[in-house]
Amino acid sequence: MLLDSSARGVYVISATPFTDTGELDLASLEALTDFYLERGATGLTVLGMMGEAPKLSPEESAAVLETVLARVAGRVPVVVGVSNPGMSALVSLSQSAMASGAAGVMIAPLASLKTEEQVINYFAAVCSALGPDVPVVLQDFPLSTGVYISVATIEAIAAKCPQIVMLKHEDWPGLSKLSRLRAGETGRGTRRLSVLVGNGGLFLPQELARGADGAMTGYAYPEMLAEVCRLFDAGERERAEDLFDVHLPLIRHETQPGLGLAIRKEVLKRRGAIASAHVRAPGPKLDGIDQAELTGLMNRLEKRLQQLG
Amino acid sequence: MLLDSSARGVYVISATPFTDTGELDLASLEALTDFYLERGATGLTVLGMMGEAPKLSPEESAAVLETVLARVAGRVPVVVGVSNPGMSALVSLSQSAMASGAAGVMIAPLASLKTEEQVINYFAAVCSALGPDVPVVLQDFPLSTGVYISVATIEAIAAKCPQIVMLKHEDWPGLSKLSRLRAGETGRGTRRLSVLVGNGGLFLPQELARGADGAMTGYAYPEMLAEVCRLFDAGERERAEDLFDVHLPLIRHETQPGLGLAIRKEVLKRRGAIASAHVRAPGPKLDGIDQAELTGLMNRLEKRLQQLG
Amino acid sequence: MLLDSSARGVYVISATPFTDTGELDLASLEALTDFYLERGATGLTVLGMMGEAPKLSPEESAAVLETVLARVAGRVPVVVGVSNPGMSALVSLSQSAMASGAAGVMIAPLASLKTEEQVINYFAAVCSALGPDVPVVLQDFPLSTGVYISVATIEAIAAKCPQIVMLKHEDWPGLSKLSRLRAGETGRGTRRLSVLVGNGGLFLPQELARGADGAMTGYAYPEMLAEVCRLFDAGERERAEDLFDVHLPLIRHETQPGLGLAIRKEVLKRRGAIASAHVRAPGPKLDGIDQAELTGLMNRLEKRLQQLG
Amino acid sequence: MLLDSSARGVYVISATPFTDTGELDLASLEALTDFYLERGATGLTVLGMMGEAPKLSPEESAAVLETVLARVAGRVPVVVGVSNPGMSALVSLSQSAMASGAAGVMIAPLASLKTEEQVINYFAAVCSALGPDVPVVLQDFPLSTGVYISVATIEAIAAKCPQIVMLKHEDWPGLSKLSRLRAGETGRGTRRLSVLVGNGGLFLPQELARGADGAMTGYAYPEMLAEVCRLFDAGERERAEDLFDVHLPLIRHETQPGLGLAIRKEVLKRRGAIASAHVRAPGPKLDGIDQAELTGLMNRLEKRLQQLG
Repeated sequence: MLLDSSARGVYVISATPFTDTGELDLASLEALTDFYLERGATGLTVLGMMGEAPKLSPEESAAVLETVLARVAGRVPVVVGVSNPGMSALVSLSQSAMASGAAGVMIAPLASLKTEEQVINYFAAVCSALGPDVPVVLQDFPLSTGVYISVATIEAIAAKCPQIVMLKHEDWPGLSKLSRLRAGETGRGTRRLSVLVGNGGLFLPQELARGADGAMTGYAYPEMLAEVCRLFDAGERERAEDLFDVHLPLIRHETQPGLGLAIRKEVLKRRGAIASAHVRAPGPKLDGIDQAELTGLMNRLEKRLQQLG
Repeated sequence: MLLDSSARGVYVISATPFTDTGELDLASLEALTDFYLERGATGLTVLGMMGEAPKLSPEESAAVLETVLARVAGRVPVVVGVSNPGMSALVSLSQSAMASGAAGVMIAPLASLKTEEQVINYFAAVCSALGPDVPVVLQDFPLSTGVYISVATIEAIAAKCPQIVMLKHEDWPGLSKLSRLRAGETGRGTRRLSVLVGNGGLFLPQELARGADGAMTGYAYPEMLAEVCRLFDAGERERAEDLFDVHLPLIRHETQPGLGLAIRKEVLKRRGAIASAHVRAPGPKLDGIDQAELTGLMNRLEKRLQQLG
Repeated sequence: MLLDSSARGVYVISATPFTDTGELDLASLEALTDFYLERGATGLTVLGMMGEAPKLSPEESAAVLETVLARVAGRVPVVVGVSNPGMSALVSLSQSAMASGAAGVMIAPLASLKTEEQVINYFAAVCSALGPDVPVVLQDFPLSTGVYISVATIEAIAAKCPQIVMLKHEDWPGLSKLSRLRAGETGRGTRRLSVLVGNGGLFLPQELARGADGAMTGYAYPEMLAEVCRLFDAGERERAEDLFDVHLPLIRHETQPGLGLAIRKEVLKRRGAIASAHVRAPGPKLDGIDQAELTGLMNRLEKRLQQLG
Repeated sequence: MLLDSSARGVYVISATPFTDTGELDLASLEALTDFYLERGATGLTVLGMMGEAPKLSPEESAAVLETVLARVAGRVPVVVGVSNPGMSALVSLSQSAMASGAAGVMIAPLASLKTEEQVINYFAAVCSALGPDVPVVLQDFPLSTGVYISVATIEAIAAKCPQIVMLKHEDWPGLSKLSRLRAGETGRGTRRLSVLVGNGGLFLPQELARGADGAMTGYAYPEMLAEVCRLFDAGERERAEDLFDVHLPLIRHETQPGLGLAIRKEVLKRRGAIASAHVRAPGPKLDGIDQAELTGLMNRLEKRLQQLG
């Protein structure tokens, strides 16, 4: 099962669970995988930024990948984050992931790339080194990478690299960028990419209306993401937004840079998906005020979900 | 009427209205001032970043200030943004603003300041040059300035500069920062500043709960900001959040960097507060898709406000 | 006398002299203009970043321009820095400069431009607003602006804007960029721009060898820049480098970001070109150690110049 | 042999040699180690940024360390770069390095640290996790990390972490910072750190005069760095600067960000220290023009060294 440009729905970016003392918790990872699949994930993404991949040893990364792939057992495609400062490490991670059964790899431009020409050349070199059979997700996340690219650059990369089948769209602001990308496919006949949106889903309804195919993000209530996508597909946009808006206070809370991961893991823990909310150092921790604040937000969410019926 | 650390409520950051051809529209500015005051502003801030101040000529800036001060006629304090790469320009702008009747000036650290020591020394030099009688608002907005400062630095600046009476708090994430600032006043006895929050009010309920005194932002429905503050003061936090949540989709929409100002001006135009939504070049423009999307968000807001009763 | 793409030699970026108390010193500006012309300047650039332009009032900027133009009296072209966050201010500054007798204007991309497409569109809009008769210098200085552009983007801007006649080249590293730009003129037939290099002349010999037409920078010994260019034109590259290398310790010293301007003004003062080395606040000041260090470097320079004969 | 604050002289930052096809070349690494020691290195630093450490697999990093330690055989201290996004990886790398015979570890602040308080807390946490017996070099390299810290912050870190014995000083501009650091030791009695300077040695004479204890950098002629330090110690400052100035054109050439490493490896190859100048992808490559330019600079260097006698 290889990723292609027809991918749709919700690819959940998986958290990486640890014990309270920071050891990898593979039992929780299995439970978390079940949690995501039961709540409507049409795909999973592991070893992304949100998965604390840079804080894992190579052995731990391999264990995460094997555990998830075994648990998923082919039910949905699994994308693997392989961004790396070294090209050869990126390639060997990718090859090993694909050999293990991954559906594709996700790659963000390196922070050291200064011009868009450099970004285009980088992806051309990466794809050439990977070989044409490895499906690639281009992650466009300037707030994190510091690398800004225009629609023309995305199109140039896609033209040079047919194996790029998906855009993880998390530029901000990015609504108009998404519309211009889709307009290019109609107007200029550029190749259509699957576009899944990130940024915690903060603009999901607007992005679906502008042509996104779904979301690739780690919001701790993936069933909402899945249901919003389903309602959009069914033409029930207002109901989709009603549901989305109920979650928006918590989505906004989770999109706080850095801190968001600690909040997200705490929510996953409270929902029973993982045993510990531990984030590896250096990383944020929630204090008593943060915890109480989160309780308030979750209580309000539950209450409003009941009102929604 | 000088600003002091007891300031509370909603200081609306005023937009600067132009005609469709980009001329300053002072009649709209008068109408907009009325609009803000009628909707509960307890203060106004003019010539801020959101007010397109860097795109105004000195004569236009003076006209904006005079027009607003005349229209306000002493009913609420008016804060004037005076950030400037040159110290002498900053001082002369401040003196002229205070002479005209402003309540205080707002200053952000320059992007060229690299260390927190430099930031502290900068504010010490600025306040010394201003003289002790000019009340100052410290604007902490790292997403825009690129200058990050810790709580200890804010406290050091406040200790060196007694005329700093207010913090415009728009670090992101900033919730814990706000709590630590307030804890310092209790625990270490640091001087209490008025804290008004920015970022379009995106975290207003959480920030009020953590000790903020209100908001200084330009969200195009200032009556909501005022009512949320009022309900919090009255102990009705859940009702405050109910109201806030109804507005959150649009608040989120307005906080898109750069683009947000065009959205905000369009909302103000649709609400009858200004004649044209023109943003001076270089600046964003809304296209047909953006306009339709905004219509959808405003319609949903109206509908949900009615449901709220 | 309008700037065109045949411009060559040394365009000195003029400092703006102040008195010790920070007032504009027009008498020193006249003396400084003479100093530059007597030492081989083939052009002058005023109101650039190094000229502390953002710290001047509009009246002061006008006085600087008028004074320099009057003193130059048409002997060499004068370029005027007009970068400005507002398009209308940029245009009115440019028109007034050209009406006063300037040879062209210099414009850097705004720091708020994130993608190269935005940079291209910005220059297209600026040139359209200026009208086709205003010669423009494109300043490519990423270390200061944070905006990185590729050769393809420079070529796209030049193709859209025939009035762009010169590139101020101060990307770093930028040697290969310069070669690729020149190769495009031969290989792909792109329009030839005059290329003058910045960065204090730190790579001047290498850049002349790669096709630069000269330098546009403010090094306090402009006679060296002029002589190096002359020797290169005469085919005496080794002698050019011999002279350049003697100056390199001081050039390197002057290229320290921020601090460099204070050093440069102090050298100009010691050489009798201006009355005071004052830099407007906020800005760097030399302390006793800095002064002694500079004395040592200048003494060594004098000694080695004598050895060179 | 553990690093302490009495460290002086030249700690050469070792390149990591590869074959032309990008394989680790341990034979060249042994030859390079000999090259450095024969040319006056008083210490070595391996696995730094310049050593392409982020592009090595864990097995390769271990091989580099073992090879260098075996070759050095205790003659000089070896410092190991261990900066890592994950705390536990940093600690395990450090422990393994120390167990193998390293003299200390070098750590730069993570790019994700936004305030100086966060930097202080980070080093406190790191040192606590390392245990008090691991000597630490604090690398202050803002141009690369984006993290700017003031003298007060360096002092705070040193006060909290007695095991920090050395500052790798490569802020730019940094001359005044160095003087203020040294003044604190005299005036305020702060603990004295060994200070070795980086930035390719671009300001070495000025920094030695201001109190630096030597250099930690990778300039491809380490014998010059050693001799300049020796001459300074012997009170022969002018002769030291005479020698330094002869090398300055090439030093400047090597300090070009990114590209410099390719130049440095090419010089090392031409000097017979390594077999291939290969830089791992993604990384810069020298083309024919770059090669010829370098030949010219090296020829001039040789000629001037002969003139110097």
